[in-house]
Amino acid sequence: MACELFYWPGIQGRGEFVRLALEEAGVEYVDVARGPKGVEKLMAALKEDARPAFAPPFLRVDGMTIGQTAAILMFLGERHGLAPSDPAGRIWTHQLQLTIADLVGEAHETHHPVGASLYYEDQKAEALRRAQEFTAQRIPKFLGYFAQVLGKQDYLLGQCTYADLSLFQAIEGLDYAFPKATARELKRHPQLEELRQRVAARPRIAAYLASSRRIPFNEDGIFRRYPELDS
Amino acid sequence: MACELFYWPGIQGRGEFVRLALEEAGVEYVDVARGPKGVEKLMAALKEDARPAFAPPFLRVDGMTIGQTAAILMFLGERHGLAPSDPAGRIWTHQLQLTIADLVGEAHETHHPVGASLYYEDQKAEALRRAQEFTAQRIPKFLGYFAQVLGKQDYLLGQCTYADLSLFQAIEGLDYAFPKATARELKRHPQLEELRQRVAARPRIAAYLASSRRIPFNEDGIFRRYPELDS
Repeated sequence: MACELFYWPGIQGRGEFVRLALEEAGVEYVDVARGPKGVEKLMAALKEDARPAFAPPFLRVDGMTIGQTAAILMFLGERHGLAPSDPAGRIWTHQLQLTIADLVGEAHETHHPVGASLYYEDQKAEALRRAQEFTAQRIPKFLGYFAQVLGKQDYLLGQCTYADLSLFQAIEGLDYAFPKATARELKRHPQLEELRQRVAARPRIAAYLASSRRIPFNEDGIFRRYPELDS
Repeated sequence: MACELFYWPGIQGRGEFVRLALEEAGVEYVDVARGPKGVEKLMAALKEDARPAFAPPFLRVDGMTIGQTAAILMFLGERHGLAPSDPAGRIWTHQLQLTIADLVGEAHETHHPVGASLYYEDQKAEALRRAQEFTAQRIPKFLGYFAQVLGKQDYLLGQCTYADLSLFQAIEGLDYAFPKATARELKRHPQLEELRQRVAARPRIAAYLASSRRIPFNEDGIFRRYPELDS
């Protein structure tokens, strides 16, 4: 049975980290909420599971429901060879993923510092203050860390893991939302730009990125291009 | 060799989730930064590791360094029986932990919505707006979710796991920081109050909570009592 991904249609969001892993692993999957009555099915699934996810994305596979992006990736990584199988390598991959998740969370906070239930326009003043710290301090700190971990390797652990796919996506998102701040850091750490291109050139990822399955970045997702927030 | 925990001294913070798991498992550990020259040792360790943590807390054990609270807990859970050993139960425990981490992250954002590098006093207006949403919408949503998962069981998975210890700590923290909002939700979900008391009464946890190893909540940690933010 094909695996089913449940995530909001119309945005990359956190679901994109899962999509990239599914695509790289060559897993047959249905992106349920992008099909007919998709959001209805997503809302119903959220309610009916014995072990319900708190929020999308979640994955249904082999009768299990798995929520939380990092947990889904850990599951896929173990099953499809997108993480080393030794315990130390497995946990190191996961640790890197959780740090990428922190970065992604902070990127989201830049446009919703007061709360997710309000529009950006209603928290623009706060967003400007938050984004200033994010671009000046947090992007350099996170990207500097990943550049250090990467060093001269081709991938974060030498071999390609789900953490590399996620770092690729985070860099893509940062570059979309904060092109000035991100270009500055990628220039400082050319190995990150090389990693990004290396991941984008992997055959299955390249095919995916060129397909209609890849939703373009937009201003409803995590990474939003509000030029006033970039500096 | 004893295991070494590295975390900022003087606060519970994210390190507390690790401490609770170490204590419940009966692991011999050194809380390095609370000892002589502790912060120096912490800063040095952050720099010298081959697989460095992005930030505290991190654990050194068996020559490995493990960062990220949820990854540390997964490691301890597997090693010390604080999570089921079947793959589905193991990942469900981790998924719950990651959702608790989301709640804890949002609790932190209430007093630092503009950014962690500024004082609370410099973002008080933003904090008031953020906390309003947190107490009115997010605490009910998170605690309602965990109450549903818990149901009539003694623990989230029936048996006690690291996710129960973390939920205990999250409830303790919410009750410290937002006593009004939290009391309202605990009254609505008495099974959460019962879980909290059940965890607190576990012999090793009870001994820990009564010891000087347990740092009291304070206004430098994640959960801060700023009465103006509670409603």
